[in-house]
Amino acid sequence: MHGISINESFSVRPIGYIESDYPDKFGIPRQPGLATAAKATLVLAPPFNTPLSVRGLEAFSHLWISFIFHRSPEEWAPLVRPPRLGGNKKIGVFASRSTHRPNRLGLSLIELVSINTDNGVRLLLKGADLMTGTPVVDIKPYLPWTEALPDARSGFAPTSPPFYPVAFSSAAEIALGQRPDANELRQLITQVLGQDPRPAYHHGQPEREYGMQLRDVNIRFQVQQRPEGNVVYVINIQKMINN
Amino acid sequence: MHGISINESFSVRPIGYIESDYPDKFGIPRQPGLATAAKATLVLAPPFNTPLSVRGLEAFSHLWISFIFHRSPEEWAPLVRPPRLGGNKKIGVFASRSTHRPNRLGLSLIELVSINTDNGVRLLLKGADLMTGTPVVDIKPYLPWTEALPDARSGFAPTSPPFYPVAFSSAAEIALGQRPDANELRQLITQVLGQDPRPAYHHGQPEREYGMQLRDVNIRFQVQQRPEGNVVYVINIQKMINN
Repeated sequence: MHGISINESFSVRPIGYIESDYPDKFGIPRQPGLATAAKATLVLAPPFNTPLSVRGLEAFSHLWISFIFHRSPEEWAPLVRPPRLGGNKKIGVFASRSTHRPNRLGLSLIELVSINTDNGVRLLLKGADLMTGTPVVDIKPYLPWTEALPDARSGFAPTSPPFYPVAFSSAAEIALGQRPDANELRQLITQVLGQDPRPAYHHGQPEREYGMQLRDVNIRFQVQQRPEGNVVYVINIQKMINN
Repeated sequence: MHGISINESFSVRPIGYIESDYPDKFGIPRQPGLATAAKATLVLAPPFNTPLSVRGLEAFSHLWISFIFHRSPEEWAPLVRPPRLGGNKKIGVFASRSTHRPNRLGLSLIELVSINTDNGVRLLLKGADLMTGTPVVDIKPYLPWTEALPDARSGFAPTSPPFYPVAFSSAAEIALGQRPDANELRQLITQVLGQDPRPAYHHGQPEREYGMQLRDVNIRFQVQQRPEGNVVYVINIQKMINN
């Protein structure tokens, strides 16, 4: 077909890697921009890490980052269960933003804060939904005059997901108070846990405890059903040993 | 770094191919949506071409299509000369949407018209900027609540490129009149040539003739400098022999 074999494959190699507040994939918000307190750095790798390759990029506020879901399985299935549909309805993998997809290509629109070219190239990002170690395969500037379409129809995901209030136990408050990044970490925990990171098929199991990693801590939490609605309750915050 | 080798590469294989009005890369508008008369079909390839894999996709009006610039060279340079800057200013390849980039990954936001699952899966697209034969590596639905950012800053490309009026010679009018798709082809030619597809470094050479392929025709044109401004003049429209 058009001189191209249907079986031809293409090799892509990382142009850089992510260093972020998310050491593990569990609990990462399902889209970028939902947890704006999340910081990340895209560290360009040789031979891409010359300041020339990002010249002019600072004039753009947002970037498209193409990356590989390197921790997702290589197997794929034509149907997936998106969490937005409660995990009990199946849609096509290409109608979803599932991480379990052919080619494992991810795409995130992420705010660019600044560029550091003191030693190689590091892009400081805000609100990224990317796990530490994620291999990045391309960066493109965002073009609002062609890519901002507020009136586009968006099927089963027409608005932002719900956001729950987050409460901290005394033990969690004490643990937070002992850290120099207390305020920032509190904001990050609130934004990330407020998204309700439980797997959709657990929603019928209130009071179940979960652990989630952020920065260098492990956070124990549960989702409590209260008369005023769901509240995410932070049971404890513990420093990870092997970090 | 994080258990991943800096030299690890990933293999991506096409999930499908494009059939479009653009048989050659010269003259294709520089972003999707600029020539809305351009039609394209994304034909899914086995084993991806089951209707299951696109279930629910019809509820979205726009798709992100990730593809390979398969006709661009594999070599890359850290600096490129975007046509929007007149071709005489260099910016970083990652600050551009240049087709000459590491990994040759392309990204287009394209309107979905309909889905045909009579025999395999064919997605009918509108305004695509994709050459026939382009290998597609992913499809994702567009999410306006997180991806429509009208106020994003966009550096050297803050607005749509200029659009010039297009005039047809008598010979071109006669050729058009003999075709069943006359009106549609006229609209397509007007939208595509109005973008001024000349290489930026030719802008100082008015009256120079160019050829561009659309559907099954070769279009001869020149950009004329008139007192009222630039006009793209269609000299002739000829059916391609080997199509």
